[in-house]
Amino acid sequence: MRVALGVGYSGTRYHGWQSQPSGNTVQDQLEKALGRFAAQPVSTLCAGRTDAGVHGLMQVVHFDTPLNRTENSWVRGTNTFLPPDIAVQWARVVPDAFHARASAVARRYAYVLLQSRVRPSVEAGRVGWVFQPLDETAMQQAAATLLGEHDFTSFRAAACQAHTPVKTMHQIRISRRPATPMGDDDACYWRFEFEANAFLHHMIRNIMGCLIAIGQGSQPAGWMREVLAARSRDAAAPTFAPDGLYFLGPVYDAHWGLPTRVPAYDWLP
Amino acid sequence: MRVALGVGYSGTRYHGWQSQPSGNTVQDQLEKALGRFAAQPVSTLCAGRTDAGVHGLMQVVHFDTPLNRTENSWVRGTNTFLPPDIAVQWARVVPDAFHARASAVARRYAYVLLQSRVRPSVEAGRVGWVFQPLDETAMQQAAATLLGEHDFTSFRAAACQAHTPVKTMHQIRISRRPATPMGDDDACYWRFEFEANAFLHHMIRNIMGCLIAIGQGSQPAGWMREVLAARSRDAAAPTFAPDGLYFLGPVYDAHWGLPTRVPAYDWLP
Repeated sequence: MRVALGVGYSGTRYHGWQSQPSGNTVQDQLEKALGRFAAQPVSTLCAGRTDAGVHGLMQVVHFDTPLNRTENSWVRGTNTFLPPDIAVQWARVVPDAFHARASAVARRYAYVLLQSRVRPSVEAGRVGWVFQPLDETAMQQAAATLLGEHDFTSFRAAACQAHTPVKTMHQIRISRRPATPMGDDDACYWRFEFEANAFLHHMIRNIMGCLIAIGQGSQPAGWMREVLAARSRDAAAPTFAPDGLYFLGPVYDAHWGLPTRVPAYDWLP
Repeated sequence: MRVALGVGYSGTRYHGWQSQPSGNTVQDQLEKALGRFAAQPVSTLCAGRTDAGVHGLMQVVHFDTPLNRTENSWVRGTNTFLPPDIAVQWARVVPDAFHARASAVARRYAYVLLQSRVRPSVEAGRVGWVFQPLDETAMQQAAATLLGEHDFTSFRAAACQAHTPVKTMHQIRISRRPATPMGDDDACYWRFEFEANAFLHHMIRNIMGCLIAIGQGSQPAGWMREVLAARSRDAAAPTFAPDGLYFLGPVYDAHWGLPTRVPAYDWLP
């Protein structure tokens, strides 16, 4: 039977999602734990690979197994063998037609950015950081030019394995919340939420680099359109830090019966 | 001159606040960084020592120095030498009469607790965890019996160095926020906020152990009064995990001119 899992993890200690010979990736940890619980090797396929340092709030994977266990026992049994910063959130038996990557009609990511004269501390590894105030209007204008179907080659890492650089950006939402007392009155946390049918490797971190260059006034808002049109990685800003990037999860058609809501991890003191 | 600093830190990687021969405490890291910036040894005194694994949103320290640096340069210069999970938030030159511990009229702590059938993952090390649902009414009743001036010996660790076990609890606030999708509909984050003139060693973690025993129905709400009256550590529940405990900071009289608001770290995705 085919089983789908929702998985949450902190990416700080891992070399990204994808299995590597080092064994120190989230997929390696998950497959090792599944293998111990199932007492046989288990190979998983995920909805969206994440880079080193990127967090997953609801990664979704599927795997095939001859074992007949309850959904609840897949959750509890696997979590017994996972390290503290990775946990299976839910398990569902799914039809064989379900595929964690191919069935996903969209993916959602959020980037959290601290704007403050003082760098992060408690939230180190969980937020990006900028020193100077950002111009929200300019960033909103620039973000709007990315909506719809485009060739996103300018925001694509050299190592990207996607079949096509053409993706459809459904939504970019930019908001801010005050942060006090961080030593200055302008301090705030920015939140950038992205939804697209799929993303290229480093695409969000490269877009973030450009949005921040525009927000800081190093480039005008119209620069984003030029970068997009150039279809060249050289046109864009450097790749921004992974620390504040969270994979909120894939979106599936409702008929699969999987949780699709963006998780609410409302645990700050 | 005397300088006061507000310091934020994640306690996960450190053996608590207080200096130890291992050198792996927050105070050791802070004094090492101050010493490098000042190019001479700097000794600090803090408002409230925290245990291993406990986080500080706004610890306050003071130190004396012959150096005349701007407040801003104390912040930036010290942060240059601090690890990523500790940062000075602000610096103020204060009168010699100011004392980070003795001048504090109150301290505030928050405990964040995940109630879920599934253990923490992204938030590992940042929240405590309970498996069973908690009864809010019973915990509120029990917490109310702790308000006011009491001998808190029952909640005091053997190693506690306080002069007296008599402390005044100003406030205990209990609230909850939903957590989805964690595999069950009852999942939520509980937040317990404590304010007292001062706290004994392990006092909050011991109170948390009792509140949770009451919330889970292992003990009736009235048990808290019995534990308090017993004035014996043997009467209380085991010390609860440090993971979800945050020192929100001390409260000082306004005439010192220091930031006293509880910090707003609103950086969740």
